[in-house]
Amino acid sequence: MQTYMKKTKLFAVTFVVLCAVIANAQEASKLNLMPVPASVKLQPERLAVDGNFRVATRGHSDARLEAGIFRFIKRLEGRTVLTLAPGLGPDDQTTPLIIHCDGPGNNIPSVSENESYRIDITQRQAMLTAPTVVGALRGLETLLQLLDADRNGYFFPGVQIDDQPRFPWRGLLIDCARHFETVEVLKRNLDGMAAVKLNVFHWHLTEDQGFRVESKKFPKLHQLGSDGNYYTQEQIKEIIAYARDRGIRVMPEFDIPGHSTSWLVGHPELGSAPGPYTIERRPGIFEPALDPTREDVYKFLDAFLGEMAALFPDEYMHIGGDENEGKQWDRNPAIQEYMKKKGIKDNHALQAYFNTRLLKILQKHGKKMIGWDEILQPELPKDVVIHSWRGTAALADAARKGYDGILSNGYYIDLIQPASQHYVPDPVPADSTLTPEEAKHVLGGEATMWAEWVTPETIDSRIWPRTAAIAERLWSPRSVTDIPDMYRRLAVISVQLEELGLTHKKNQEMMLRRLVRNDDVGPLRTLISVIEPVKEYRRYDMRPQTMLSPLTGVIDATPPESDTARKFSWMVREFLNDAPRYELYRPELSAMLADWQTSAASLGPMIDRSPALKEIKPLAQNLSQLGATGEEAISYLKLGMPPPRDWRDVSLARIDAAAKPYGALEFVVIGAVKQLVNAAADIGRK
Amino acid sequence: MQTYMKKTKLFAVTFVVLCAVIANAQEASKLNLMPVPASVKLQPERLAVDGNFRVATRGHSDARLEAGIFRFIKRLEGRTVLTLAPGLGPDDQTTPLIIHCDGPGNNIPSVSENESYRIDITQRQAMLTAPTVVGALRGLETLLQLLDADRNGYFFPGVQIDDQPRFPWRGLLIDCARHFETVEVLKRNLDGMAAVKLNVFHWHLTEDQGFRVESKKFPKLHQLGSDGNYYTQEQIKEIIAYARDRGIRVMPEFDIPGHSTSWLVGHPELGSAPGPYTIERRPGIFEPALDPTREDVYKFLDAFLGEMAALFPDEYMHIGGDENEGKQWDRNPAIQEYMKKKGIKDNHALQAYFNTRLLKILQKHGKKMIGWDEILQPELPKDVVIHSWRGTAALADAARKGYDGILSNGYYIDLIQPASQHYVPDPVPADSTLTPEEAKHVLGGEATMWAEWVTPETIDSRIWPRTAAIAERLWSPRSVTDIPDMYRRLAVISVQLEELGLTHKKNQEMMLRRLVRNDDVGPLRTLISVIEPVKEYRRYDMRPQTMLSPLTGVIDATPPESDTARKFSWMVREFLNDAPRYELYRPELSAMLADWQTSAASLGPMIDRSPALKEIKPLAQNLSQLGATGEEAISYLKLGMPPPRDWRDVSLARIDAAAKPYGALEFVVIGAVKQLVNAAADIGRK
Repeated sequence: MQTYMKKTKLFAVTFVVLCAVIANAQEASKLNLMPVPASVKLQPERLAVDGNFRVATRGHSDARLEAGIFRFIKRLEGRTVLTLAPGLGPDDQTTPLIIHCDGPGNNIPSVSENESYRIDITQRQAMLTAPTVVGALRGLETLLQLLDADRNGYFFPGVQIDDQPRFPWRGLLIDCARHFETVEVLKRNLDGMAAVKLNVFHWHLTEDQGFRVESKKFPKLHQLGSDGNYYTQEQIKEIIAYARDRGIRVMPEFDIPGHSTSWLVGHPELGSAPGPYTIERRPGIFEPALDPTREDVYKFLDAFLGEMAALFPDEYMHIGGDENEGKQWDRNPAIQEYMKKKGIKDNHALQAYFNTRLLKILQKHGKKMIGWDEILQPELPKDVVIHSWRGTAALADAARKGYDGILSNGYYIDLIQPASQHYVPDPVPADSTLTPEEAKHVLGGEATMWAEWVTPETIDSRIWPRTAAIAERLWSPRSVTDIPDMYRRLAVISVQLEELGLTHKKNQEMMLRRLVRNDDVGPLRTLISVIEPVKEYRRYDMRPQTMLSPLTGVIDATPPESDTARKFSWMVREFLNDAPRYELYRPELSAMLADWQTSAASLGPMIDRSPALKEIKPLAQNLSQLGATGEEAISYLKLGMPPPRDWRDVSLARIDAAAKPYGALEFVVIGAVKQLVNAAADIGRK
Repeated sequence: MQTYMKKTKLFAVTFVVLCAVIANAQEASKLNLMPVPASVKLQPERLAVDGNFRVATRGHSDARLEAGIFRFIKRLEGRTVLTLAPGLGPDDQTTPLIIHCDGPGNNIPSVSENESYRIDITQRQAMLTAPTVVGALRGLETLLQLLDADRNGYFFPGVQIDDQPRFPWRGLLIDCARHFETVEVLKRNLDGMAAVKLNVFHWHLTEDQGFRVESKKFPKLHQLGSDGNYYTQEQIKEIIAYARDRGIRVMPEFDIPGHSTSWLVGHPELGSAPGPYTIERRPGIFEPALDPTREDVYKFLDAFLGEMAALFPDEYMHIGGDENEGKQWDRNPAIQEYMKKKGIKDNHALQAYFNTRLLKILQKHGKKMIGWDEILQPELPKDVVIHSWRGTAALADAARKGYDGILSNGYYIDLIQPASQHYVPDPVPADSTLTPEEAKHVLGGEATMWAEWVTPETIDSRIWPRTAAIAERLWSPRSVTDIPDMYRRLAVISVQLEELGLTHKKNQEMMLRRLVRNDDVGPLRTLISVIEPVKEYRRYDMRPQTMLSPLTGVIDATPPESDTARKFSWMVREFLNDAPRYELYRPELSAMLADWQTSAASLGPMIDRSPALKEIKPLAQNLSQLGATGEEAISYLKLGMPPPRDWRDVSLARIDAAAKPYGALEFVVIGAVKQLVNAAADIGRK
C-alpha cells in the first residue's frame, strides 16, 4: 500500500504513537552509536588514532572486505585530515586495527546472512572479529561511529561490543518510479543505509507514473513508459554490485496487477480495457490493471519476470499487489464472464487467482514471492511473504497463520512525521502475544520512501536522518527506546552521513538561495526553522502539483522535522518549570522570539522580489505575531505582572490563527507559545 | 606549463595586474549578464513569465536544440516554481518565446562555429534568432540570466541584444590526472561552462600521477597507471556527447614526452631509463620521459594516439610538451649517442625532433597539434597551435610568426588568486602592437584547473565562480573592464550556477560540519570569511601532502577569495572617507569586529574537540587581536580622541604578527585594519 493509506489507519497509528508509554530512558551512553549495539561495555582506556593508524586482516580476506577497509580508511582520513599509509599493515602487535574474519559469508547477500561482529578496543590495539565479511563491514561502521577526539587527538574509546541484529530484514524502499532517481542518488543512499546497518534496498521500479527498468525482451516497456528515465541493465548490475559490496540485498518490485499504467503505454494488450494509455502525471490510485483472465498476459509475465529474475540475484521478488480497486475488471464483459465461468466470486478472489498464477511463475524462475497485505488470501501458499502496510496486528495475524512478514506501517517516511514517531512502532512489540516460534516469522521491516514529492535534489532530506531511527528499531534490542537519547545520537549521525555525499543538509541552503535569488537567506532560514511541511497526504490537497512540476518551493526546502522547534519547546518547558524565577533559558527564548520578529520584517521585501515566496507571506506575518505574543508572555512572567483580562483570549486566538497552514507548511511551535501565554495569563490566578 | 610556473613570471603577472589602470567603470547596467553581450539595448517594457510560458521553434530544429529548450524550461521552472506545459508550443503570436534557428551548425563542435545570436524582447513576445543551434543555446543561457522578478511576478526585461564572442576559443582545462574527477563532476562543470558561454573542455588526461583513459590497444596504461581511477571509452563518449549537446568541444591532452610517469608503470620500455616506474604521489616535476630516439616509441604512439584520435572527434589534440628537463636523456648513453649521430645539439632540439615526429603522427590521424609554449621551435610548422603559459608577449610573438595561439597565463585558477586578478589579462591587450591580421592568430584562452589540491568535493569551489570572470574576458568586448560591476554580477551568477548541481557553495558548510563534528559552525565560518588560502604554489611548502591525502582540512573548506574581506575593506574606506563624522558603516564594522572576537573565543573549545582544527589555533588568536585592534581604532576615531603615543606601533606590530599564515591560510583584512589603525593614530597629528 502506497500513496493513500486509509485515514482511519493513519489515525490509529498516530494515536498509538502518542499514547505509547515511553520506556524509562536507560542510562544514556556516552557513545554516539546508532543503531545501539546488542551489548556494549566501556573500558577506561583508549586507542589513539594518529598518522600511524593502519589496518591488518587475519583469517579470511577478499576483495569485498578490502574495498570496505579502503572506504573505512578514506572516511577516517577525511574526518581527521591525517594521511595514512596506503594498503594493509602487517598482522602483528604494531598494527592498531586487526580484522579477523572467518569466511566470506553468502556470495549473494541474503536474509540468512550472519551479520554479527565483536569489537575489542584496548589502548594497544583494536580487534574486530566477525564470522562473515558482512559482519566485518557492520563492525567497521560501528568503529567509524566510535571515533572520538579531544585535545590529545583522535581516538577510539576502549569498548567491548558484541553485536548482532534483532531482525534479519531491515530495508529501505525507494520509489524510483513516481520520480526518477539517478544512479548517483541510489549509490549515496546505499552508503547511508550501510552506515546505519540497513541491509535491504527495496527498489520500487514500476508504477502508473513510470516504468524504470530496461527490458531487452519487451523494450516498449521502458521506451514508452519512462520519458527516457530508466535504468539500463548495466546500471542495475552496477547498483547490485555496489549494494553487495556493502552487504545490502537489492530486491526489485514490479507492482501488478494495479499500479501498472506505465506498462500499458507500450503494451495496451495486457490491460483490462482497450486503452490507449498514457503515463500518469498525478498522484493517486488509477484504474488500469493487467487482465488476469488472459493466458497471453501470463505468458508475457513469465517472459518478463524471467528476464528480471536473471537480472536480480536476490531470492525474493516483490510483486506489489496493492490498491487495485478492480474498476476496469468490473467494466470488462470478458472478465466478468470468465469469473462466472470459473466461479470466481469477486475481485478479491480474482486477484487471488492472479497471485496464484504469478506465484507459479516466480517459483519457476527460482524466486520467493513477496507482496503487500492485500495478497494474503485464504488459499495463499505459506512460502509467500507478507509486506504489511496495515500494521503489527495484521503482521502478527499472518505470522500466526505461518506466513513470514515484514512491517512498513509506522515507517512511511513520506508521511513527513518526526523521527520519534517512526521510532516507536516495533515489528514485534513488547505486548505481542506471538509465541517465540510465531515471532520468528516476523523478519523485520522497511522504511518506505514513496516518491510523489521528492527529486534527486530533495530525496536525501526526506530519507535522512529520520531513517536512522527506523534502522535502530530494526537492529537494536527492543529495550532501546529512549527518545531524547535517540535524538542526541541522530544529530551526530546526521553530520556523519554527509561524508557519504548525502545532501540532506547541504541542499537546503542552496534551495533557499535559489528562492531568494542571492546569499541572504537568514530570515527565510529562521522561518523555516519553526515550520514543517503538513503531514500525511495533505500536501497534494493543499498545494496540487504534478509529477512534472518543479519541487523547488519553500516546502521542498523545509525539512520534515524541525530540530529548532523541538529545542524551543524544550526550553519553554524548562523556563516554565523554573517558576517563579523564570530565568532558565529566558535569554535564549527572548533572542529567538526577537529573531522571529526581525526576520519576519525582512521577509516582506524578500517576498516582493521573489514571487515563488508569495505563498509564505501569511506565514511571515504569523511568525511575527508568534514572536510578539511569546515575548509579551515572557515579559509578564518575568515581571510577575498579570496581563490585562482579555489578553489570554486575544493571544490564544492570534496563535490559533497562526496555526493555519499556508503553502502546505505549518508552525510547530504553536503548542509551546500557547504554554507561555497560558502560564502568563495564570499569573495571580493560582 | 603546469605546476611550477617560474617565480619571476609569476611576479611579473602580479605586478601587471596590480598596476593595471582599471578602465573607468562604464555605466553599470541594471542587468546581471555574464559575460556581458556585445550589444545590449534596454526597452521600457517587459515580458511576463507565468504558468503560460512556452517555447516554440521556427526554421531549423533538431534533437540538440530541443534538449536545450527542455533544460531551459526545467531551470526556469526550478527558479519560479511554476509548472509549465510540457513540449513545444505553436509557432504563433500566443507563444511567449520563439526560437528561430537557421541551421544545425557544425556537426562536431568546432573553433569555426558561429555562436552569435540575437534576442528581442517586447511585452508581447521574445524572439531568439541564431544562425546555428549553438548560437541558440548561447542565447538561452542569456535569457536565463535575464529572468527577473518583482511583486508583479517573474519577467524578462525588454531588451534587444546582439551578441557574439570576441574569441572563438574559450576553454577550461580540468586536470583529471593528479586527482581523478568523476563523470558527475565533469558533467556539472560542463553545465557551468555552458552557462558562462565557455566552449572548450580541455581534458588533461595523463600525468606523472595518473593515466585516466581506457586504452583497448594498450590496457596496461590504464590498468597499471590509474589506481583503477580512469574513464572507460563509454564514459568518454558520454562526456563528449554531453559537451556537444551544450556546444562545447572536448579536446584531450596526452602530455608527452615528460609528465609521463604513469604511462611507464605499465610500459617501462617506452622510458628513457629502464625503470621500474611507480605512480607519482607528490606534486612537482619528475624526470621520467619517453625515449624520443627509438622507433618503437613512435610506433606505440602512432597506435595509441590513433586509438585516441578515433575516440575524440575534436580536430585538435594537445600533446603537452612542457616541463621536460631531459635529465633522463642526459643520463642515457644510447640517447646521447643518437643525438651525436643525428647532430641534435641539445635537449631542446631533441624535443623539437620528437615533436616533429609527433606532428606527423597526428596529421596522419587527421588531428591538428597543440602544445605548450615549449614546443615553439624554429622549425615548427605553422599549423601547430601554441598554448601559452608564458604570457601575451610570447603569444604575440608566436602570432607574428604566423602561429595560432591561446593564452592561459593569467588564467591559472589553481593559483588561488582573486577573480579581479584573472579578469585583467587580455589575450590581445589594448596596447597590443599586433596588426589586425596577426591578432586573428590569437584564438582565445583557457582557464586551467590544475588538480594537485582538489577533489570531487572541492574542485567546484576552485573553479567557480572565478572562472566566470575569465569567460567574460574571452567573450565580451575588450572594453568591459569594470571590476566592481564584475563582482556585482559574479555574485548573482554564482547562485545561479548552483542550480546546475555545482557544489562551490554548498560543500563548504558540509566540510565545516565535518571538521567541528556538529552543526555549530558559526565561529569557524566567521574565521574563514576573512582568510584565504595562501597564493600561488606556497601551499605545498607550508602544508605538505600527497596526492593520496585527504583534502578535507580548513584550507580546503576556505574559498579562494573572500567576499567578506572585500566588503570589509570597502566599508573601511567608506568609513574613513566619512571623516570627521565617522558614522558611515560604523555599526556594521563594529559588529564584524565584535563577531571576530566572540568567534575567536568560541573557537578555542572547538579546536580542543577537533584536532584537525589545531593548525588554525594561531589564526583564531589573531582573529581576536585583529578584532580588538580594529575596535580600538574605531573608538578613537569616533571619539576624536588621540590614542596613546605608542599605540600605533604596538597595534601595527600586532597586525603584522597576525599577517603570518598558519595552516597555509592568511588573513586578507590586514591592510584594512592597518588603515583603521593609521587613521586613528593620525588623530590630532594632521
